[in-house]
Amino acid sequence: MAQRHRVVVVGGGFAGVDLCRKLKDAPCDITLIDRRNFHLFQPLLYQVATGGLSPGDIAAPLRTVVAKAKNVVTLLGEVEDVDVEKKQVILQDQAMVPYDTLVIATGVRHSYFGNDQWEKVAPGLKSLEDALEIRSRVLNAFEQAERAETREEREAWLRFVIVGGGPTGVELAGALGELASHTMKGEFRSIDSDDARIILIEGTGRILSMYKQHLSDHGVDALHDLGVAVLLNTKVTCIDADGVDVEGKEGKERIPAKTVLWAAGVTASPLAKLIAAKTGAKTDRPGRLIVEGDLTLPGHPEILVLGDLAHFAHTDDQQPLPGVATVAMQMGRHAAVVIERRIAQPDAAAGSGPLFHFFDKGTMAVIGRNEAVARIGFGLNLSFGGFFAWLAWLFIHIMYLVGFENRLLVLLQWANHYFTRHRGARLITGEGVGG
Amino acid sequence: MAQRHRVVVVGGGFAGVDLCRKLKDAPCDITLIDRRNFHLFQPLLYQVATGGLSPGDIAAPLRTVVAKAKNVVTLLGEVEDVDVEKKQVILQDQAMVPYDTLVIATGVRHSYFGNDQWEKVAPGLKSLEDALEIRSRVLNAFEQAERAETREEREAWLRFVIVGGGPTGVELAGALGELASHTMKGEFRSIDSDDARIILIEGTGRILSMYKQHLSDHGVDALHDLGVAVLLNTKVTCIDADGVDVEGKEGKERIPAKTVLWAAGVTASPLAKLIAAKTGAKTDRPGRLIVEGDLTLPGHPEILVLGDLAHFAHTDDQQPLPGVATVAMQMGRHAAVVIERRIAQPDAAAGSGPLFHFFDKGTMAVIGRNEAVARIGFGLNLSFGGFFAWLAWLFIHIMYLVGFENRLLVLLQWANHYFTRHRGARLITGEGVGG
Repeated sequence: MAQRHRVVVVGGGFAGVDLCRKLKDAPCDITLIDRRNFHLFQPLLYQVATGGLSPGDIAAPLRTVVAKAKNVVTLLGEVEDVDVEKKQVILQDQAMVPYDTLVIATGVRHSYFGNDQWEKVAPGLKSLEDALEIRSRVLNAFEQAERAETREEREAWLRFVIVGGGPTGVELAGALGELASHTMKGEFRSIDSDDARIILIEGTGRILSMYKQHLSDHGVDALHDLGVAVLLNTKVTCIDADGVDVEGKEGKERIPAKTVLWAAGVTASPLAKLIAAKTGAKTDRPGRLIVEGDLTLPGHPEILVLGDLAHFAHTDDQQPLPGVATVAMQMGRHAAVVIERRIAQPDAAAGSGPLFHFFDKGTMAVIGRNEAVARIGFGLNLSFGGFFAWLAWLFIHIMYLVGFENRLLVLLQWANHYFTRHRGARLITGEGVGG
Repeated sequence: MAQRHRVVVVGGGFAGVDLCRKLKDAPCDITLIDRRNFHLFQPLLYQVATGGLSPGDIAAPLRTVVAKAKNVVTLLGEVEDVDVEKKQVILQDQAMVPYDTLVIATGVRHSYFGNDQWEKVAPGLKSLEDALEIRSRVLNAFEQAERAETREEREAWLRFVIVGGGPTGVELAGALGELASHTMKGEFRSIDSDDARIILIEGTGRILSMYKQHLSDHGVDALHDLGVAVLLNTKVTCIDADGVDVEGKEGKERIPAKTVLWAAGVTASPLAKLIAAKTGAKTDRPGRLIVEGDLTLPGHPEILVLGDLAHFAHTDDQQPLPGVATVAMQMGRHAAVVIERRIAQPDAAAGSGPLFHFFDKGTMAVIGRNEAVARIGFGLNLSFGGFFAWLAWLFIHIMYLVGFENRLLVLLQWANHYFTRHRGARLITGEGVGG
């Protein structure tokens, strides 16, 4: 019997999972490798960070997610090296996994732009552990404020700085505003949780810059109503355990704050650098791999790069596609077509696979209860904010929790939050229990 | 204005929380101190350890749980010392909290009977972190088995030893059996999760010794049906990272197993020792404080000890009450009566408060889907096992998730497990991601 085509997929995010599912009836054997045993619904990570959802609500075992694809073997492991000549992936425990087609979809992490020492004092939000760390810090800050002995100390514990006015920063700020002004109201005795000051710092002149100007303005207003102050055109020059130094139009300033969260930048996962070195592929500034129109690497038709890690600029405006779930999912499904073609025509030239076209359905970001901004794609390019944007966001996010058996449960949990403003998962766990 | 009576409650478990709630209209100021910011529904901890429930499902913020008692101040902190003369509690950050009545309800931890080195290789199940650690180890074991290269290695990863045949050990073993033989079925490629061998080791001649013999036998049969082997009259003499040494009727034996869980013994929380030294109170073998009939310490009418930490033997058979939730809850409510009496009659003699009587409603332990053992109290002393015991267990546990806003959600989650046998919260988190 002839050897079946072997596909190795590194990374079980949206791209990797959708690829595996799409290939379930293809004549190939797939090995799906991930460091974690679960697939994460990243767009809702900020809900875990603010106690609205439990980790289990937005993560599902990878094995379960791809269980129906009987040609997929799931491996828990970390890739240490790739031998591009011999076509095999080497795992950290030295296990070798040979491939005919290699798919890299390991995503991005947050970047501190060379200030890695900030990571300790200003955690970012990319992994489930990040979210739990942020949750612990935020809840602990209120506990410490309750016990603070001086006004200064209390105010520093009640001040929350979020760096970065993209969707993650805005969603975090909005959810923190909800938490402080509504959920926790009346639970403390020596502080009023409503006294919390949430400050969103953005280096450019507007937040949510991928939306139209009027939506950015709408976002600032909506955040304001939740008690969030937005500082535009403001650069962060230093972060330490007691606050941040910023530089804006009105000069330098020190903002004392015990809690600083980072939502400002991303960098490619380390595997990108390795692949670039081995294949001669080019990377962009954040380190993403620049791919051909068929999602393969130049000169390497057997290596595909998908999702946030791919720099795909074969668009009308030559701009790379954004690192969002919908792009990753569509890339995953397209990669399945490319691989099926490869199996059928093993000798086709590099870059000659079917071209990827992103179908833009739109994008949205939630700001608070009843508040979101949305841009509807489908060629309409319709922008709006407010309650209906929020409803649309809710509907689409719940709908896309596909493969998450607890979709209905999450919906019910949200209905519960919505009417009671309770947030059930407000637990301070892990080492940082705090004095 | 006269100083109101000050009550300090250390420990936000069942006893502490029920006490605070019961005292909500009493003329006193209550300070509730806990190391954690949440109240834990401990009877369901094994469900978190086996991926059936998320931490947020069985834990609720302490502040929320006692929010209606406006006379309660909740403090996140750890008690370092108690000054019995000056009547004040000293926290780890040196903050002083003065009291007129002190309530100690800090519970128990697991004990390794002098073999503390076993803790690293055989975690117990008392805290939420314990449960997550066990969950990670169990799930990781299946992942490692899938990747094992020799048969020996694979079998060691697929062997799970649970030490201790009390309710915790039996519930863990049953849930692991469910997980292996049903939930995970079909998700692996090189192993069959059903091949997992679960071994429950009990030192005495029967499991679930607080039940009648026929229920212990029923338990062994039910475990057997789930693929769990029960070794009775077997002592563990050594535990290391690769297995356990046991000594039974048939001599010594080595059981190679990569996963060992400890459910064998408890010891009082360290605060008991401190209180005993300061007040001259006696402790029993596990270190619990021996209390008077009114739950106070001998000679100290101002100190009450409640819940698992109290050795209360003013019973018909002079046996101490078991460390279970119902005892703790009733003690909490009774302590409220004792404290109200103290406020009304500040000069009453030590030990002269109203006597505590435990009203025994019964007890139950679940073994698997549709399987439990139950003893109904209410003076009936009715014992039975099987489906109806399981239904009763389910009903009572859901009912008692009082204060947990997500009671209905947990019920739905269970309904979902029941019909699909899915376990949603199967995430390997934390440091131990494993290679």
